[in-house]
Amino acid sequence: MNFDIETYLNERRNFVNSYLEELYEKQPNSTQSLLKSILYSLTSGGKRLRPILCMASCELFSGEYKKAIGVASAIEMVHTYSLIHDDLPSMDDDNVRRGKPSNHIKFGESTAILAGDALLADAFSLINNELQFQGFNPELSLKIISVLSNAIGSKGMVLGQAMDLYFEGKNEVNIETLSKIHYLKTGALIEASILIGGYIGDADNNEIETLRKFSRKIGLSFQISDDILDITGSESFGKNTGSDAKKNKKTFASVLGIESSHDLVQSLTEEALGELSDLKKEFNPLHGIAIYLSERAK
Amino acid sequence: MNFDIETYLNERRNFVNSYLEELYEKQPNSTQSLLKSILYSLTSGGKRLRPILCMASCELFSGEYKKAIGVASAIEMVHTYSLIHDDLPSMDDDNVRRGKPSNHIKFGESTAILAGDALLADAFSLINNELQFQGFNPELSLKIISVLSNAIGSKGMVLGQAMDLYFEGKNEVNIETLSKIHYLKTGALIEASILIGGYIGDADNNEIETLRKFSRKIGLSFQISDDILDITGSESFGKNTGSDAKKNKKTFASVLGIESSHDLVQSLTEEALGELSDLKKEFNPLHGIAIYLSERAK
Repeated sequence: MNFDIETYLNERRNFVNSYLEELYEKQPNSTQSLLKSILYSLTSGGKRLRPILCMASCELFSGEYKKAIGVASAIEMVHTYSLIHDDLPSMDDDNVRRGKPSNHIKFGESTAILAGDALLADAFSLINNELQFQGFNPELSLKIISVLSNAIGSKGMVLGQAMDLYFEGKNEVNIETLSKIHYLKTGALIEASILIGGYIGDADNNEIETLRKFSRKIGLSFQISDDILDITGSESFGKNTGSDAKKNKKTFASVLGIESSHDLVQSLTEEALGELSDLKKEFNPLHGIAIYLSERAK
Repeated sequence: MNFDIETYLNERRNFVNSYLEELYEKQPNSTQSLLKSILYSLTSGGKRLRPILCMASCELFSGEYKKAIGVASAIEMVHTYSLIHDDLPSMDDDNVRRGKPSNHIKFGESTAILAGDALLADAFSLINNELQFQGFNPELSLKIISVLSNAIGSKGMVLGQAMDLYFEGKNEVNIETLSKIHYLKTGALIEASILIGGYIGDADNNEIETLRKFSRKIGLSFQISDDILDITGSESFGKNTGSDAKKNKKTFASVLGIESSHDLVQSLTEEALGELSDLKKEFNPLHGIAIYLSERAK
Protein backbone atom coordinates (compact mmCIF):
# COMPACT_ATOMS: atom_id res chain seq x y z
CA MET A 1 0.00 0.00 0.00
CA ASN A 2 1.21 3.46 -0.85
CA PHE A 3 1.73 5.14 2.50
CA ASP A 4 3.09 8.62 2.94
CA ILE A 5 3.41 9.33 6.64
CA GLU A 6 3.36 13.12 6.32
CA THR A 7 0.13 13.06 4.32
CA TYR A 8 -1.36 10.55 6.72
CA LEU A 9 -0.50 12.61 9.81
CA ASN A 10 -1.72 15.83 8.23
CA GLU A 11 -5.01 14.32 7.24
CA ARG A 12 -5.61 12.85 10.69
CA ARG A 13 -4.49 16.04 12.41
CA ASN A 14 -6.96 18.07 10.36
CA PHE A 15 -9.70 15.61 11.20
CA VAL A 16 -9.01 16.01 14.93
CA ASN A 17 -8.71 19.79 14.63
CA SER A 18 -12.10 20.11 12.90
CA TYR A 19 -13.74 17.92 15.47
CA LEU A 20 -12.30 19.87 18.40
CA GLU A 21 -13.12 23.26 16.87
CA GLU A 22 -16.75 22.32 16.41
CA LEU A 23 -17.10 20.78 19.81
CA TYR A 24 -17.16 23.99 21.82
CA GLU A 25 -18.73 26.12 19.11
CA LYS A 26 -22.00 24.36 19.77
CA GLN A 27 -21.88 25.64 23.34
CA PRO A 28 -23.83 28.85 23.97
CA ASN A 29 -21.53 31.73 24.67
CA SER A 30 -21.10 32.65 28.29
CA THR A 31 -20.36 36.02 29.80
CA GLN A 32 -16.76 35.27 30.63
CA SER A 33 -13.53 34.09 29.17
CA LEU A 34 -13.66 30.43 30.19
CA LEU A 35 -14.75 29.24 26.76
CA LYS A 36 -12.20 31.43 24.99
CA SER A 37 -9.48 30.10 27.23
CA ILE A 38 -10.50 26.48 26.59
CA LEU A 39 -10.62 27.02 22.83
CA TYR A 40 -7.34 28.93 22.81
CA SER A 41 -5.40 25.95 24.10
CA LEU A 42 -7.50 23.29 22.43
CA THR A 43 -7.15 24.72 18.94
CA SER A 44 -3.60 26.06 19.07
CA GLY A 45 -2.06 23.39 16.90
CA GLY A 46 -0.07 20.64 18.45
CA LYS A 47 0.91 17.32 16.97
CA ARG A 48 -2.32 15.57 17.98
CA LEU A 49 -0.14 12.54 18.58
CA ARG A 50 -2.41 10.88 21.12
CA PRO A 51 -5.65 11.02 19.10
CA ILE A 52 -3.77 9.98 15.97
CA LEU A 53 -2.33 6.97 17.79
CA CYS A 54 -5.77 6.13 19.16
CA MET A 55 -7.38 6.24 15.72
CA ALA A 56 -4.48 4.35 14.14
CA SER A 57 -4.81 1.60 16.69
CA CYS A 58 -8.55 1.37 16.06
CA GLU A 59 -7.93 1.27 12.31
CA LEU A 60 -5.38 -1.50 12.73
CA PHE A 61 -7.98 -3.93 14.02
CA SER A 62 -11.19 -2.73 12.42
CA GLY A 63 -10.09 -1.07 9.19
CA GLU A 64 -11.90 2.09 10.34
CA TYR A 65 -10.57 5.05 12.25
CA LYS A 66 -13.45 7.51 12.25
CA LYS A 67 -15.47 5.78 14.91
CA ALA A 68 -12.69 6.53 17.40
CA ILE A 69 -12.72 10.30 16.76
CA GLY A 70 -14.82 11.32 19.77
CA VAL A 71 -12.86 9.30 22.28
CA ALA A 72 -9.56 10.24 20.59
CA SER A 73 -10.49 13.92 20.87
CA ALA A 74 -11.41 13.48 24.52
CA ILE A 75 -7.90 12.12 25.08
CA GLU A 76 -6.48 15.24 23.41
CA MET A 77 -8.63 17.33 25.78
CA VAL A 78 -7.07 15.52 28.72
CA HIS A 79 -3.61 16.14 27.25
CA THR A 80 -4.45 19.83 26.74
CA TYR A 81 -5.66 20.18 30.33
CA SER A 82 -2.35 18.71 31.53
CA LEU A 83 -0.33 21.16 29.43
CA ILE A 84 -2.29 24.17 30.74
CA HIS A 85 -1.76 23.12 34.36
CA ASP A 86 1.88 22.10 33.84
CA ASP A 87 2.69 25.55 32.42
CA LEU A 88 1.35 27.40 35.48
CA PRO A 89 3.80 29.58 37.44
CA SER A 90 3.72 27.29 40.49
CA MET A 91 4.40 24.27 38.28
CA ASP A 92 6.84 24.37 35.33
CA ASP A 93 6.37 28.13 34.91
CA ASP A 94 6.49 28.06 31.11
CA ASN A 95 5.20 31.14 29.35
CA VAL A 96 5.34 29.78 25.81
CA ARG A 97 3.47 26.77 24.49
CA ARG A 98 3.18 25.73 20.86
CA GLY A 99 4.86 29.00 19.88
CA LYS A 100 2.22 31.15 21.59
CA PRO A 101 1.81 32.64 25.06
CA SER A 102 0.77 29.97 27.54
CA ASN A 103 -2.86 29.95 28.63
CA HIS A 104 -2.22 31.67 31.98
CA ILE A 105 -0.17 34.40 30.30
CA LYS A 106 -3.05 35.12 27.95
CA PHE A 107 -6.03 34.63 30.29
CA GLY A 108 -4.65 34.80 33.82
CA GLU A 109 -4.01 32.02 36.29
CA SER A 110 -7.52 31.48 37.61
CA THR A 111 -9.04 31.10 34.15
CA ALA A 112 -6.20 28.80 33.10
CA ILE A 113 -6.76 26.54 36.10
CA LEU A 114 -10.50 26.47 35.42
CA ALA A 115 -10.01 25.82 31.70
CA GLY A 116 -7.88 22.79 32.60
CA ASP A 117 -10.44 21.60 35.14
CA ALA A 118 -13.24 21.99 32.60
CA LEU A 119 -11.36 20.12 29.88
CA LEU A 120 -10.79 17.19 32.21
CA ALA A 121 -14.43 16.93 33.25
CA ASP A 122 -15.69 17.62 29.72
CA ALA A 123 -13.50 14.82 28.37
CA PHE A 124 -15.51 12.32 30.40
CA SER A 125 -18.78 13.90 29.22
CA LEU A 126 -17.64 13.64 25.64
CA ILE A 127 -16.58 10.01 25.96
CA ASN A 128 -19.92 9.18 27.47
CA ASN A 129 -21.89 10.97 24.78
CA GLU A 130 -19.77 9.52 22.02
CA LEU A 131 -20.03 6.00 23.31
CA GLN A 132 -23.79 6.25 23.42
CA PHE A 133 -23.96 7.97 20.04
CA GLN A 134 -21.74 5.35 18.41
CA GLY A 135 -23.70 2.55 20.00
CA PHE A 136 -20.63 0.92 21.54
CA ASN A 137 -21.53 -1.77 23.99
CA PRO A 138 -21.62 -0.45 27.55
CA GLU A 139 -18.96 -2.87 28.85
CA LEU A 140 -16.54 -1.54 26.25
CA SER A 141 -17.45 2.01 27.22
CA LEU A 142 -16.72 1.37 30.87
CA LYS A 143 -13.44 -0.32 29.97
CA ILE A 144 -12.40 2.80 28.06
CA ILE A 145 -13.31 5.12 30.92
CA SER A 146 -11.44 2.86 33.32
CA VAL A 147 -8.24 2.75 31.22
CA LEU A 148 -8.27 6.51 30.77
CA SER A 149 -9.06 7.51 34.34
CA ASN A 150 -6.46 5.12 35.77
CA ALA A 151 -3.80 6.53 33.44
CA ILE A 152 -4.24 10.12 34.51
CA GLY A 153 -4.98 10.20 38.25
CA SER A 154 -2.90 9.86 41.41
CA LYS A 155 -1.32 6.61 40.16
CA GLY A 156 -0.66 7.98 36.67
CA MET A 157 -0.09 11.30 34.96
CA VAL A 158 -0.67 13.52 38.01
CA LEU A 159 1.77 11.44 40.07
CA GLY A 160 4.31 11.80 37.24
CA GLN A 161 4.02 15.57 37.31
CA ALA A 162 4.28 15.60 41.11
CA MET A 163 7.44 13.45 40.95
CA ASP A 164 8.87 15.61 38.20
CA LEU A 165 8.46 18.72 40.38
CA TYR A 166 9.79 16.91 43.44
CA PHE A 167 13.00 15.78 41.73
CA GLU A 168 13.67 19.16 40.11
CA GLY A 169 17.19 20.25 41.05
CA LYS A 170 17.89 17.02 42.95
CA ASN A 171 21.05 15.11 42.12
CA GLU A 172 19.98 11.62 43.08
CA VAL A 173 17.90 11.22 39.91
CA ASN A 174 19.03 8.17 37.98
CA ILE A 175 17.84 6.62 34.74
CA GLU A 176 15.45 4.32 36.57
CA THR A 177 13.71 7.20 38.32
CA LEU A 178 13.65 9.23 35.11
CA SER A 179 12.06 6.31 33.28
CA LYS A 180 9.40 6.04 35.96
CA ILE A 181 8.64 9.77 35.87
CA HIS A 182 8.48 9.74 32.07
CA TYR A 183 6.22 6.71 32.05
CA LEU A 184 3.79 8.23 34.52
CA LYS A 185 3.89 11.77 33.15
CA THR A 186 3.77 11.00 29.42
CA GLY A 187 3.86 7.28 28.72
CA ALA A 188 0.72 6.30 30.61
CA LEU A 189 -1.54 8.55 28.52
CA ILE A 190 0.15 7.49 25.27
CA GLU A 191 -0.36 3.87 26.28
CA ALA A 192 -4.00 4.55 27.17
CA SER A 193 -4.54 6.21 23.76
CA ILE A 194 -3.23 3.18 21.92
CA LEU A 195 -5.03 0.61 24.09
CA ILE A 196 -8.33 2.48 23.89
CA GLY A 197 -8.05 2.59 20.10
CA GLY A 198 -7.46 -1.16 20.21
CA TYR A 199 -10.53 -1.69 22.39
CA ILE A 200 -12.70 0.37 20.04
CA GLY A 201 -11.30 -1.60 17.09
CA ASP A 202 -12.22 -4.81 18.90
CA ALA A 203 -8.69 -6.11 19.52
CA ASP A 204 -8.54 -9.33 21.57
CA ASN A 205 -6.66 -9.68 24.85
CA ASN A 206 -3.43 -10.91 23.28
CA GLU A 207 -3.46 -8.04 20.84
CA ILE A 208 -4.05 -5.59 23.67
CA GLU A 209 -1.00 -6.99 25.48
CA THR A 210 1.09 -6.57 22.32
CA LEU A 211 -0.14 -2.99 22.01
CA ARG A 212 0.81 -2.40 25.62
CA LYS A 213 4.42 -3.56 25.04
CA PHE A 214 4.63 -1.45 21.90
CA SER A 215 3.22 1.57 23.75
CA ARG A 216 5.69 1.40 26.62
CA LYS A 217 8.66 1.44 24.28
CA ILE A 218 7.25 4.12 22.03
CA GLY A 219 6.20 6.27 24.97
CA LEU A 220 9.68 6.22 26.49
CA SER A 221 11.35 6.77 23.14
CA PHE A 222 9.05 9.76 22.53
CA GLN A 223 9.96 11.34 25.84
CA ILE A 224 13.70 10.84 25.31
CA SER A 225 13.32 12.62 21.95
CA ASP A 226 11.62 15.47 23.78
CA ASP A 227 14.56 15.66 26.19
CA ILE A 228 16.96 15.84 23.22
CA LEU A 229 14.84 18.50 21.51
CA ASP A 230 14.83 20.57 24.69
CA ILE A 231 18.62 20.83 24.33
CA THR A 232 19.10 20.91 20.56
CA GLY A 233 15.99 23.01 20.02
CA SER A 234 14.02 23.51 16.86
CA GLU A 235 11.67 26.14 15.43
CA SER A 236 8.90 23.63 15.10
CA PHE A 237 9.16 22.55 18.72
CA GLY A 238 7.18 25.61 19.79
CA LYS A 239 8.44 25.63 23.37
CA ASN A 240 11.29 27.50 24.98
CA THR A 241 14.32 25.30 24.54
CA GLY A 242 16.81 24.79 27.34
CA SER A 243 14.00 25.00 29.88
CA ASP A 244 15.00 21.69 31.52
CA ALA A 245 18.58 22.86 32.01
CA LYS A 246 17.42 26.23 33.35
CA LYS A 247 15.39 24.43 36.02
CA ASN A 248 18.34 22.15 36.73
CA LYS A 249 16.10 19.28 35.73
CA LYS A 250 17.80 15.98 34.96
CA THR A 251 16.79 14.39 31.67
CA PHE A 252 17.90 11.39 29.61
CA ALA A 253 19.86 13.75 27.41
CA SER A 254 21.67 15.37 30.33
CA VAL A 255 22.38 12.09 32.16
CA LEU A 256 23.31 9.88 29.19
CA GLY A 257 24.45 12.54 26.73
CA ILE A 258 22.86 13.36 23.39
CA GLU A 259 24.49 10.60 21.38
CA SER A 260 23.57 7.77 23.74
CA SER A 261 20.07 9.18 23.98
CA HIS A 262 19.78 9.04 20.20
CA ASP A 263 20.94 5.42 20.30
CA LEU A 264 18.34 4.62 22.94
CA VAL A 265 15.56 6.18 20.85
CA GLN A 266 16.72 4.01 17.97
CA SER A 267 16.86 0.75 19.89
CA LEU A 268 13.54 1.33 21.67
CA THR A 269 11.92 2.03 18.31
CA GLU A 270 13.32 -1.17 16.84
CA GLU A 271 12.03 -3.16 19.80
CA ALA A 272 8.65 -1.49 19.46
CA LEU A 273 8.48 -2.39 15.77
CA GLY A 274 9.42 -5.95 16.69
CA GLU A 275 6.37 -6.12 18.95
CA LEU A 276 4.14 -4.92 16.13
CA SER A 277 5.32 -7.68 13.81
CA ASP A 278 3.61 -10.17 16.17
CA LEU A 279 0.28 -8.74 15.06
CA LYS A 280 0.85 -9.95 11.50
CA LYS A 281 -1.06 -7.12 9.87
CA GLU A 282 -0.39 -6.19 6.29
CA PHE A 283 -1.01 -2.48 6.80
CA ASN A 284 -0.03 -1.11 10.18
CA PRO A 285 -0.13 2.67 10.56
CA LEU A 286 1.47 2.40 14.02
CA HIS A 287 4.62 1.17 12.26
CA GLY A 288 4.96 4.34 10.21
CA ILE A 289 4.14 6.57 13.15
CA ALA A 290 6.78 4.89 15.33
CA ILE A 291 9.48 5.42 12.71
CA TYR A 292 8.37 9.01 12.16
CA LEU A 293 8.58 9.72 15.88
CA SER A 294 12.06 8.21 16.14
CA GLU A 295 13.30 10.64 13.52
CA ARG A 296 11.82 13.71 15.16
CA ALA A 297 14.91 14.64 17.17
CA LYS A 298 17.47 13.96 14.45
CA MET B 1 -40.40 5.56 62.57
CA ASN B 2 -38.14 7.01 65.19
CA PHE B 3 -35.81 9.34 63.29
CA ASP B 4 -33.20 11.49 64.91
CA ILE B 5 -31.55 13.57 62.23
CA GLU B 6 -28.35 14.28 64.19
CA THR B 7 -27.76 10.57 64.82
CA TYR B 8 -28.57 9.79 61.24
CA LEU B 9 -26.17 12.38 59.83
CA ASN B 10 -23.40 11.38 62.22
CA GLU B 11 -23.71 7.73 61.33
CA ARG B 12 -23.64 8.41 57.60
CA ARG B 13 -20.80 10.90 57.93
CA ASN B 14 -18.71 8.33 59.78
CA PHE B 15 -19.48 5.76 57.13
CA VAL B 16 -18.25 8.11 54.40
CA ASN B 17 -15.20 9.12 56.43
CA SER B 18 -14.11 5.52 56.98
CA TYR B 19 -14.55 4.73 53.32
CA LEU B 20 -12.52 7.73 52.19
CA GLU B 21 -9.75 7.14 54.73
CA GLU B 22 -9.26 3.57 53.57
CA LEU B 23 -9.38 4.44 49.91
CA TYR B 24 -5.96 6.05 49.66
CA GLU B 25 -4.35 3.98 52.39
CA LYS B 26 -4.38 1.04 50.01
CA GLN B 27 -2.19 3.04 47.65
CA PRO B 28 1.55 2.41 47.99
CA ASN B 29 3.34 5.39 49.41
CA SER B 30 5.09 7.58 46.91
CA THR B 31 8.19 9.69 47.37
CA GLN B 32 6.39 12.99 47.47
CA SER B 33 3.62 14.84 49.16
CA LEU B 34 0.85 14.32 46.63
CA LEU B 35 -0.82 11.56 48.62
CA LYS B 36 -0.52 13.48 51.89
CA SER B 37 -2.05 16.53 50.26
CA ILE B 38 -4.95 14.51 48.86
CA LEU B 39 -5.62 12.84 52.20
CA TYR B 40 -5.29 16.11 54.11
CA SER B 41 -8.23 17.67 52.29
CA LEU B 42 -10.21 14.49 51.84
CA THR B 43 -10.21 13.55 55.52
CA SER B 44 -10.41 16.98 57.12
CA GLY B 45 -14.01 16.69 58.22
CA GLY B 46 -16.68 18.49 56.30
CA LYS B 47 -20.41 17.91 56.38
CA ARG B 48 -20.30 15.16 53.74
CA LEU B 49 -23.60 16.59 52.56
CA ARG B 50 -23.33 15.38 48.97
CA PRO B 51 -22.57 11.73 49.70
CA ILE B 52 -25.20 11.70 52.46
CA LEU B 53 -27.80 13.06 50.03
CA CYS B 54 -26.73 10.50 47.44
CA MET B 55 -27.07 7.60 49.85
CA ALA B 56 -30.36 8.95 51.26
CA SER B 57 -31.80 9.17 47.79
CA CYS B 58 -30.71 5.61 47.04
CA GLU B 59 -32.22 4.44 50.33
CA LEU B 60 -35.48 6.18 49.54
CA PHE B 61 -36.15 3.93 46.54
CA SER B 62 -34.35 0.73 47.42
CA GLY B 63 -34.36 0.63 51.23
CA GLU B 64 -30.55 0.33 51.11
CA TYR B 65 -27.93 3.02 51.25
CA LYS B 66 -24.65 1.10 51.45
CA LYS B 67 -24.51 0.15 47.82
CA ALA B 68 -24.18 3.83 46.93
CA ILE B 69 -21.13 4.40 49.15
CA GLY B 70 -18.46 4.17 46.44
CA VAL B 71 -20.19 6.52 44.03
CA ALA B 72 -21.22 8.82 46.90
CA SER B 73 -17.59 9.01 48.01
CA ALA B 74 -16.45 9.75 44.48
CA ILE B 75 -18.85 12.71 44.50
CA GLU B 76 -17.23 13.91 47.74
CA MET B 77 -13.84 13.61 46.03
CA VAL B 78 -15.09 15.86 43.24
CA HIS B 79 -16.40 18.32 45.82
CA THR B 80 -13.04 18.24 47.64
CA TYR B 81 -11.14 18.89 44.42
CA SER B 82 -13.33 21.93 43.79
CA LEU B 83 -12.68 23.31 47.27
CA ILE B 84 -8.90 22.90 46.92
CA HIS B 85 -8.87 24.73 43.59
CA ASP B 86 -11.37 27.41 44.70
CA ASP B 87 -9.16 28.27 47.68
CA LEU B 88 -6.06 28.94 45.53
CA PRO B 89 -4.54 32.44 45.63
CA SER B 90 -5.53 33.19 42.03
CA MET B 91 -9.11 32.09 42.74
CA ASP B 92 -10.91 32.88 46.01
CA ASP B 93 -7.61 33.17 47.91
CA ASP B 94 -8.92 31.55 51.10
CA ASN B 95 -6.30 30.38 53.55
CA VAL B 96 -8.64 28.59 55.95
CA ARG B 97 -10.91 25.68 55.12
CA ARG B 98 -12.84 23.56 57.60
CA GLY B 99 -11.00 25.33 60.40
CA LYS B 100 -7.56 24.33 59.13
CA PRO B 101 -5.00 25.87 56.75
CA SER B 102 -6.12 25.47 53.14
CA ASN B 103 -4.35 22.82 51.09
CA HIS B 104 -2.07 25.27 49.25
CA ILE B 105 -1.05 26.93 52.54
CA LYS B 106 -0.02 23.56 53.93
CA PHE B 107 1.48 21.93 50.80
CA GLY B 108 2.18 24.74 48.35
CA GLU B 109 0.31 25.74 45.24
CA SER B 110 1.64 23.18 42.79
CA THR B 111 0.83 20.23 45.04
CA ALA B 112 -2.61 21.68 45.79
CA ILE B 113 -3.39 22.01 42.08
CA LEU B 114 -2.19 18.46 41.45
CA ALA B 115 -4.11 17.07 44.44
CA GLY B 116 -7.28 18.60 42.98
CA ASP B 117 -6.51 17.25 39.52
CA ALA B 118 -5.85 13.79 40.95
CA LEU B 119 -9.07 13.76 42.98
CA LEU B 120 -11.09 14.62 39.89
CA ALA B 121 -9.54 11.86 37.76
CA ASP B 122 -9.55 9.36 40.63
CA ALA B 123 -13.26 9.99 41.20
CA PHE B 124 -14.00 8.58 37.75
CA SER B 125 -11.69 5.60 38.41
CA LEU B 126 -13.49 4.92 41.66
CA ILE B 127 -16.94 5.13 40.09
CA ASN B 128 -15.87 2.72 37.41
CA ASN B 129 -14.39 0.24 39.85
CA GLU B 130 -17.34 0.50 42.17
CA LEU B 131 -19.87 0.04 39.45
CA GLN B 132 -18.15 -3.11 38.27
CA PHE B 133 -17.64 -4.36 41.81
CA GLN B 134 -21.29 -3.80 42.70
CA GLY B 135 -22.45 -5.43 39.50
CA PHE B 136 -24.58 -2.47 38.45
CA ASN B 137 -25.76 -2.78 34.91
CA PRO B 138 -23.49 -0.95 32.49
CA GLU B 139 -26.22 1.37 31.17
CA LEU B 140 -26.84 2.59 34.70
CA SER B 141 -23.12 3.06 35.19
CA LEU B 142 -22.82 5.19 32.07
CA LYS B 143 -25.85 7.23 33.09
CA ILE B 144 -24.18 7.98 36.42
CA ILE B 145 -20.90 9.03 34.78
CA SER B 146 -22.86 11.18 32.35
CA VAL B 147 -24.86 12.98 35.05
CA LEU B 148 -21.75 13.63 37.12
CA SER B 149 -19.46 14.79 34.32
CA ASN B 150 -22.11 17.11 32.87
CA ALA B 151 -22.68 18.69 36.28
CA ILE B 152 -19.05 19.63 36.86
CA GLY B 153 -17.54 20.69 33.53
CA SER B 154 -17.66 23.81 31.38
CA LYS B 155 -21.48 23.85 31.47
CA GLY B 156 -21.66 23.19 35.21
CA MET B 157 -19.54 23.69 38.31
CA VAL B 158 -16.45 25.07 36.57
CA LEU B 159 -18.56 27.62 34.69
CA GLY B 160 -20.16 28.61 38.00
CA GLN B 161 -16.76 29.28 39.55
CA ALA B 162 -15.65 31.21 36.45
CA MET B 163 -18.80 33.37 36.61
CA ASP B 164 -18.36 33.88 40.33
CA LEU B 165 -14.84 35.22 39.76
CA TYR B 166 -15.97 37.31 36.81
CA PHE B 167 -18.74 39.05 38.74
CA GLU B 168 -16.61 39.70 41.82
CA GLY B 169 -16.77 43.40 42.61
CA LYS B 170 -19.23 44.11 39.80
CA ASN B 171 -22.39 46.02 40.64
CA GLU B 172 -24.70 44.72 37.93
CA VAL B 173 -25.20 41.42 39.76
CA ASN B 174 -28.88 40.80 40.36
CA ILE B 175 -30.76 37.98 42.00
CA GLU B 176 -31.24 36.18 38.69
CA THR B 177 -27.50 36.15 37.97
CA LEU B 178 -26.75 35.14 41.54
CA SER B 179 -29.20 32.25 41.29
CA LYS B 180 -27.55 31.09 38.10
CA ILE B 181 -24.06 31.28 39.60
CA HIS B 182 -25.20 29.42 42.71
CA TYR B 183 -26.93 26.77 40.67
CA LEU B 184 -23.89 26.13 38.52
CA LYS B 185 -21.30 26.42 41.27
CA THR B 186 -23.07 24.47 44.01
CA GLY B 187 -26.54 23.37 42.97
CA ALA B 188 -25.55 21.28 39.96
CA LEU B 189 -23.38 18.90 42.00
CA ILE B 190 -25.98 18.67 44.78
CA GLU B 191 -28.59 17.83 42.15
CA ALA B 192 -26.27 15.25 40.58
CA SER B 193 -25.70 13.64 44.01
CA ILE B 194 -29.41 13.24 44.60
CA LEU B 195 -30.22 12.06 41.07
CA ILE B 196 -27.36 9.56 41.04
CA GLY B 197 -28.58 8.13 44.36
CA GLY B 198 -32.00 7.81 42.77
CA TYR B 199 -30.57 6.01 39.74
CA ILE B 200 -28.67 3.57 41.96
CA GLY B 201 -31.84 3.01 43.97
CA ASP B 202 -33.70 2.27 40.73
CA ALA B 203 -36.03 5.29 40.74
CA ASP B 204 -38.20 5.58 37.63
CA ASN B 205 -38.23 8.58 35.31
CA ASN B 206 -41.06 10.37 37.09
CA GLU B 207 -39.35 9.92 40.41
CA ILE B 208 -36.10 11.26 38.95
CA GLU B 209 -37.96 14.38 37.77
CA THR B 210 -39.41 14.87 41.24
CA LEU B 211 -35.93 14.50 42.72
CA ARG B 212 -34.67 17.08 40.27
CA LYS B 213 -37.27 19.66 41.36
CA PHE B 214 -36.53 18.93 45.00
CA SER B 215 -32.78 19.25 44.37
CA ARG B 216 -33.01 22.63 42.66
CA LYS B 217 -34.90 24.15 45.57
CA ILE B 218 -32.72 22.55 48.22
CA GLY B 219 -29.53 23.47 46.39
CA LEU B 220 -30.46 27.14 46.18
CA SER B 221 -31.71 27.21 49.75
CA PHE B 222 -28.41 25.64 50.88
CA GLN B 223 -26.37 28.29 49.11
CA ILE B 224 -28.45 31.16 50.50
CA SER B 225 -27.83 29.74 53.98
CA ASP B 226 -24.11 29.76 53.19
CA ASP B 227 -24.36 33.41 52.19
CA ILE B 228 -26.09 34.22 55.49
CA LEU B 229 -23.50 32.24 57.46
CA ASP B 230 -20.72 34.15 55.73
CA ILE B 231 -22.12 37.31 57.33
CA THR B 232 -23.41 36.07 60.66
CA GLY B 233 -20.54 33.61 61.08
CA SER B 234 -20.37 30.62 63.34
CA GLU B 235 -17.62 28.57 65.00
CA SER B 236 -18.77 25.43 63.29
CA PHE B 237 -18.65 27.02 59.87
CA GLY B 238 -14.88 26.50 59.70
CA LYS B 239 -14.23 29.20 57.12
CA ASN B 240 -13.24 32.81 57.50
CA THR B 241 -16.47 34.74 57.82
CA GLY B 242 -17.00 37.99 56.02
CA SER B 243 -14.92 36.76 53.10
CA ASP B 244 -17.66 37.58 50.57
CA ALA B 245 -17.91 41.17 51.79
CA LYS B 246 -14.13 41.55 51.81
CA LYS B 247 -14.04 40.58 48.15
CA ASN B 248 -16.95 42.91 47.44
CA LYS B 249 -18.85 39.85 46.31
CA LYS B 250 -22.61 40.22 45.99
CA THR B 251 -24.61 37.51 47.71
CA PHE B 252 -28.29 36.84 48.43
CA ALA B 253 -27.73 38.10 51.95
CA SER B 254 -26.12 41.35 50.80
CA VAL B 255 -28.66 42.01 48.02
CA LEU B 256 -31.86 40.95 49.81
CA GLY B 257 -30.80 41.47 53.40
CA ILE B 258 -30.51 38.80 56.08
CA GLU B 259 -34.17 38.67 57.03
CA SER B 260 -35.51 38.26 53.50
CA SER B 261 -32.82 35.68 52.85
CA HIS B 262 -34.03 33.69 55.85
CA ASP B 263 -37.57 33.91 54.51
CA LEU B 264 -36.41 32.66 51.13
CA VAL B 265 -34.63 29.69 52.71
CA GLN B 266 -37.84 28.90 54.52
CA SER B 267 -40.11 29.11 51.49
CA LEU B 268 -37.73 27.17 49.23
CA THR B 269 -37.55 24.43 51.84
CA GLU B 270 -41.32 24.24 52.09
CA GLU B 271 -41.61 23.99 48.31
CA ALA B 272 -38.92 21.29 48.28
CA LEU B 273 -40.81 19.30 50.92
CA GLY B 274 -43.95 19.69 48.83
CA GLU B 275 -42.17 18.03 45.91
CA LEU B 276 -41.16 15.12 48.11
CA SER B 277 -44.71 14.46 49.19
CA ASP B 278 -45.45 13.46 45.56
CA LEU B 279 -43.25 10.42 46.08
CA LYS B 280 -45.65 9.04 48.70
CA LYS B 281 -42.96 7.32 50.75
CA GLU B 282 -43.55 6.51 54.38
CA PHE B 283 -39.94 7.06 55.42
CA ASN B 284 -38.08 9.75 53.52
CA PRO B 285 -34.66 10.72 54.86
CA LEU B 286 -34.43 13.58 52.34
CA HIS B 287 -37.30 15.22 54.24
CA GLY B 288 -35.35 15.33 57.50
CA ILE B 289 -32.17 16.47 55.78
CA ALA B 290 -33.98 19.32 54.02
CA ILE B 291 -35.43 20.60 57.30
CA TYR B 292 -32.06 20.24 59.02
CA LEU B 293 -30.35 22.25 56.29
CA SER B 294 -32.94 25.01 56.47
CA GLU B 295 -32.18 25.49 60.16
CA ARG B 296 -28.42 25.66 59.69
CA ALA B 297 -28.22 29.45 59.39
CA LYS B 298 -30.70 30.28 62.13
